Amino acid sequence: MATEIKVGLAGFGNVGKGTYDILERNHSLIRQRAGAPISVKRVTVRNVDRVKLLVDEDVIVTNDWHDLVNDPEVNVVVEAMGGIEPAKSLILAAIDAGKHVVTANKALLAEHGNEIFSAAQAKGVNVAFEAAVAGSIPIVKALREGLAANRVSSIAGIINGTCNFILSTMRDTGRSFDDVLKEAQRLGYAEADPTFDIEGTDSAHKLMLLSAIAFGVPVDMSKVHIEGITHLEAKDIKFAEELGYRIKLLGITKYTDYGIELRVHPALVPTRRLLANVEGAMNAVVVKGDAAESSLYYGKGAGSEPTGSAVVADLIDIARTAEVAVSERPRMPTTTHNPKAKSFADFGDTVCSYYLRIPVEDKPGVLAEIARILADNKISIESLIQKEAPLEDASTEIILLTHSTREADIQRAIRTMQQLANVRGAIVLLRKEELQ
Amino acid sequence: MATEIKVGLAGFGNVGKGTYDILERNHSLIRQRAGAPISVKRVTVRNVDRVKLLVDEDVIVTNDWHDLVNDPEVNVVVEAMGGIEPAKSLILAAIDAGKHVVTANKALLAEHGNEIFSAAQAKGVNVAFEAAVAGSIPIVKALREGLAANRVSSIAGIINGTCNFILSTMRDTGRSFDDVLKEAQRLGYAEADPTFDIEGTDSAHKLMLLSAIAFGVPVDMSKVHIEGITHLEAKDIKFAEELGYRIKLLGITKYTDYGIELRVHPALVPTRRLLANVEGAMNAVVVKGDAAESSLYYGKGAGSEPTGSAVVADLIDIARTAEVAVSERPRMPTTTHNPKAKSFADFGDTVCSYYLRIPVEDKPGVLAEIARILADNKISIESLIQKEAPLEDASTEIILLTHSTREADIQRAIRTMQQLANVRGAIVLLRKEELQ
Repeated sequence: MATEIKVGLAGFGNVGKGTYDILERNHSLIRQRAGAPISVKRVTVRNVDRVKLLVDEDVIVTNDWHDLVNDPEVNVVVEAMGGIEPAKSLILAAIDAGKHVVTANKALLAEHGNEIFSAAQAKGVNVAFEAAVAGSIPIVKALREGLAANRVSSIAGIINGTCNFILSTMRDTGRSFDDVLKEAQRLGYAEADPTFDIEGTDSAHKLMLLSAIAFGVPVDMSKVHIEGITHLEAKDIKFAEELGYRIKLLGITKYTDYGIELRVHPALVPTRRLLANVEGAMNAVVVKGDAAESSLYYGKGAGSEPTGSAVVADLIDIARTAEVAVSERPRMPTTTHNPKAKSFADFGDTVCSYYLRIPVEDKPGVLAEIARILADNKISIESLIQKEAPLEDASTEIILLTHSTREADIQRAIRTMQQLANVRGAIVLLRKEELQ
Repeated sequence: MATEIKVGLAGFGNVGKGTYDILERNHSLIRQRAGAPISVKRVTVRNVDRVKLLVDEDVIVTNDWHDLVNDPEVNVVVEAMGGIEPAKSLILAAIDAGKHVVTANKALLAEHGNEIFSAAQAKGVNVAFEAAVAGSIPIVKALREGLAANRVSSIAGIINGTCNFILSTMRDTGRSFDDVLKEAQRLGYAEADPTFDIEGTDSAHKLMLLSAIAFGVPVDMSKVHIEGITHLEAKDIKFAEELGYRIKLLGITKYTDYGIELRVHPALVPTRRLLANVEGAMNAVVVKGDAAESSLYYGKGAGSEPTGSAVVADLIDIARTAEVAVSERPRMPTTTHNPKAKSFADFGDTVCSYYLRIPVEDKPGVLAEIARILADNKISIESLIQKEAPLEDASTEIILLTHSTREADIQRAIRTMQQLANVRGAIVLLRKEELQ
């Protein structure tokens, strides 16, 4: 028999309210699919009075999260508070009390997942987190179950809607980053303090979880190379377009001979690839496996009900399998899973192809100097645009694409080029992902 | 404990060999993920000698499918024969013997699914069929589990790679259907007898299964409106492109006030939609739900290992849950699921917007006649192109897009227009899907 679920819900913001609303509206449909009823018994929030007006009168609303842990009828805690504390204490206390946990908290899991998953495994409870990565998209389930026959070789995703909205709008309008960021804030696509999104931290948290699932590694945020989009210039978006690429902020993790790559950075994606055509605040993840080959998952990465959809899917899975032995449940990424897990790669060992924009004096011989430095570092050029019209101060810009090369080699070449008397400013480097 | 799976594999063509190869190559990884080993114990094929060379020597190869059913150690039968018989007899016999079944056979399930699923439910065994729809894409799991919180309102998919390859190539090259079909046959994208694919039958089978899962209805192929791509002309692809659309063969099922729509036909999709950018032999499915909103699933819809990937994912799910009560297992679409299931819609009640190409005499007043007929049928025009240059015989063509209207109304209008003296040939009608 499926297990009736009485939810203790912590937090009634975006995700908490979305989860509650779906459970109310689709109650009978969810009961039918889960094989047992799922309802919210308790909510804990800071502002009790506000939330009492938004929920059924038989839902108990208090302002102390311990109430969820102490209620023996609550068998699943949904953590929708966000942030590290008190979310972490709540989750560990819920696990300790033998309750299953569902959370959308990517920052917490990416930073403290090892401790949380180990505690859950020791207690034989689930910590489910479909909502933590790419909102409504069932990508955690796709990786763990749908693609379970595959040895995954790489994952590349647009997993931050704020950044994708900004980049799509910069391309469509030719406007600057700062200008579009302000619009995104006005429209509610970016927060008042957008640092977490635009610096790439949020994408890195989600990427860390995807990598942990796909490759069975413990989470370790110190291994993620992170670059955001704050330094992107409108002209690089334009030049990329001329070369047949769109710039997207990607989270990329690959299983390679030299270790597992983990990196978040803006990347040139060929215009004909589906991923290049993901517009606005949408999310998409491309997975490559040895049997399924390439597949892509696309949808809303944020929002109240899209995220709630993923929380409720986890609740339905728990209702179906709560009484099943832990070994048969969908696997959790923990340190105990894969003792032979590959280690993370040094970022310098990453193999990529590159876009360089080099501001130079418009003099004969400049291109020869640059070409020589690249050759000395065994970097070969795939294509080159020397912008024809020199700028007003007699400087111009060389734009080139390289073939595949090691990150350490391109960085060394850039340091050397930067010393040239004819190079007039900072060289811009962007990476290219063919996603073949 | 998870259950060790000993597979009886019927058929060793494309799908059978892909399944076998994945189980061999990724054996230890699959064992870890399933919680128990999964291996092929027996294979039945027509040509025993050919297959003996391709499998391990401890696999028993015979030419009688009854051997799979009669072996008490075989606990899951993988049906990879295709066709209706003997596949149907094998599946029913395996169910009767208490064995689980995994199949990629969409034609069989779309035609005889009610009988098969009812038998499985009565016996408490699974009939899993992830591989039957869209190959490697875990769309069955996404609908049943990932999106289980949602009331699905519509599904629209490119679910036949042969047709999508032909349409993509027609657009890229401007060549005719017949010409591109021959190329597709040379390249192995189309079979020697391509009827099932190009007439839309294969898409209709897959659509029927998607609709059954999403809406809990019994399968009934007689309710699917099916149009293939054999009559598509290169010029309609070109005109659609000029209007900002690409033509794709879509399978569409919608839950509406007047019943469940089920239709397969070429459709104009706005160029900026992701679905319009699915190229070559790839598959993609867009699902709309009330909570998750729009999501899309993309990948290889055919091929040995991509299809095998889905078969093996089903085997892993069975290993994890074989000892679990049937009620907790992923739901099967059967007549017993949803006694209040909505009935299917009459095709005439479908609401769509339309593309019309009307060959006319290049005379004053023709457009007025056509506009009047549309107005009489309460059809309003969204945009119109009268091709400027008259053809050599003083005829020309009017191309127009309508706003939303009922199928029965547009058909009545076309019948009336077709009577006009100034209309010189058959009016071409195509449907438009905005996928908003």
